Amino acid sequence: MKPLLVRELLGEALREHRMGQGRTLRDVSLSARVSLGYLSEVERGQKEASSELLSSICTALRVPMSEIFRRVSEKLLVAEIENDGNPTAQPRRQVEVAA
Amino acid sequence: MKPLLVRELLGEALREHRMGQGRTLRDVSLSARVSLGYLSEVERGQKEASSELLSSICTALRVPMSEIFRRVSEKLLVAEIENDGNPTAQPRRQVEVAA
Repeated sequence: MKPLLVRELLGEALREHRMGQGRTLRDVSLSARVSLGYLSEVERGQKEASSELLSSICTALRVPMSEIFRRVSEKLLVAEIENDGNPTAQPRRQVEVAA
Repeated sequence: MKPLLVRELLGEALREHRMGQGRTLRDVSLSARVSLGYLSEVERGQKEASSELLSSICTALRVPMSEIFRRVSEKLLVAEIENDGNPTAQPRRQVEVAA
């Protein structure tokens, strides 16, 4: 059962955007002014990206952060549904919380 | 111009869920097994929550992470529109970050 680690899904979403643009890690890392190794680790879900670095990476990818987070939310939802029944999974339908 | 710091919007979303349940920082921090001070800093956007801690906090709040990320995405979109008048535009604030 796959654990729900946000950094992995966030990394996936960032990589998908980069690949979709046919761009290299080197190109995006230069543009975002982060090291290639760091960007690679973020994409593989091995490193948590700080808010500032995430903003830089999204700017380099020319994608609004809202779009990345929407995508991560979708990925999380799929994983939550797949994990349903697993005691370590997130509760699935307890979303109805008063604001 | 409001800076788009994900940790601030994430903290807001977590706090909104906690307050909506009428629960205290102490209650949620005990349930999530994180220190009260840490949870408070996360809610105020002063600390980045690791993926593992975020998962624990969401479990303690009985809210799926997908729901929190959907909410953060909405908050980001509002901020992006406020900052640029265009939801597809890039966050204007460029952050100088060393890798």
